[in-house]
Amino acid sequence: MSVEAKLKELGLELPPAPAPAGNYVPTVRTGNLLFVSGALALKNGEVTHAGQVGAEQTVESGYEAARVAALNTLAAIKGELGSFDAVKRLVMVNGFVNATPNFGESPKVINGASDLFAAALGEKGKHARAAVAVAGLPLKSAVELQVVVEVE
Amino acid sequence: MSVEAKLKELGLELPPAPAPAGNYVPTVRTGNLLFVSGALALKNGEVTHAGQVGAEQTVESGYEAARVAALNTLAAIKGELGSFDAVKRLVMVNGFVNATPNFGESPKVINGASDLFAAALGEKGKHARAAVAVAGLPLKSAVELQVVVEVE
Amino acid sequence: MSVEAKLKELGLELPPAPAPAGNYVPTVRTGNLLFVSGALALKNGEVTHAGQVGAEQTVESGYEAARVAALNTLAAIKGELGSFDAVKRLVMVNGFVNATPNFGESPKVINGASDLFAAALGEKGKHARAAVAVAGLPLKSAVELQVVVEVE
Repeated sequence: MSVEAKLKELGLELPPAPAPAGNYVPTVRTGNLLFVSGALALKNGEVTHAGQVGAEQTVESGYEAARVAALNTLAAIKGELGSFDAVKRLVMVNGFVNATPNFGESPKVINGASDLFAAALGEKGKHARAAVAVAGLPLKSAVELQVVVEVE
Repeated sequence: MSVEAKLKELGLELPPAPAPAGNYVPTVRTGNLLFVSGALALKNGEVTHAGQVGAEQTVESGYEAARVAALNTLAAIKGELGSFDAVKRLVMVNGFVNATPNFGESPKVINGASDLFAAALGEKGKHARAAVAVAGLPLKSAVELQVVVEVE
Repeated sequence: MSVEAKLKELGLELPPAPAPAGNYVPTVRTGNLLFVSGALALKNGEVTHAGQVGAEQTVESGYEAARVAALNTLAAIKGELGSFDAVKRLVMVNGFVNATPNFGESPKVINGASDLFAAALGEKGKHARAAVAVAGLPLKSAVELQVVVEVE
């Protein structure tokens, strides 16, 4: 089953690929590695989950925010490669959570991304990961993901 | 002298390699690069140094926390490779310190990791590095390390 | 026109390359990738922009801080490679902004780096990017950059 079909089963649809912004680009390929620019919890240009986990957002809504950011990451990958056929596997997910001081549950938030990547990509979706709570994220998004992918 | 013997001289012992958790894995190898998932100041499943440097922890105890996280990083590398013989060199250490706002001494904390890597791996242990203070880390660990290794 | 000449047109001059500090080094090359250690807003050993954006610093002065950190990144690259001829392209810029809680404008700050890289390196300077606000940075610098470069 295609990645798009698996997402449809989850009630999700790939958004359009992001466009270059200013002097940076959505993805850079070097050899067999694809570096994807930070993806936010954005839908149709609007932040879906704004504010800090521990204040405006909860662990549960942060999990949803991470799913949205993961979907945007997948859109960027497809935008670069044309399809997911050339994805050999996800390598690294750096998951940043916009959170209140000494927040200790960033893994539960970033699981929203890890679970979506596994659902969409299967074994190829399993990745190394770091989950970190930070002071703030672009547009006050609750989550940002920065991903490295191995491509064929 | 083996890495394990050098660690023993320092009074340290490699913990067991981490197990996969949920939909992510301890390490991913792509070509000659090994990406290691974020390692915490954990021993026997318990956080050894919890809380923020500048509050519950000091620069000195944070240095110790970074040593513990470095030891867990080495355990993950050995878990993937079987031994340290295939380590060509450490490439990059991203060191995150759980700290109070505007904390400026993250390098002194992350030196705990850099010094341990140098002691254990010699010239192969020298790495590029970024040290950053963040709002929070998993399980309220004082330190998290995310490391990239070149392997043969 | 050389990178150095383009910088001169902007009224900028490359600082000396950074020296190794303790047990880490300014750059590590692995295959065709060069990982550059975190670069701060430092000039002649002094922080040019200290403190948090949203408190001691503004978005505008943070933009300037990011330019200074970008210049130090270029100095580290030249220090490793001898010249910019071997730079194939910038791959990834991780931009960290020392900022007050829930700061949402880190992209405007890190644009200072992206714009300088584009001015100095042209199309080769376009990169993938993540911009994140953090609790603190070394020496209380307002900005830190961690960059990956593809080299020939």
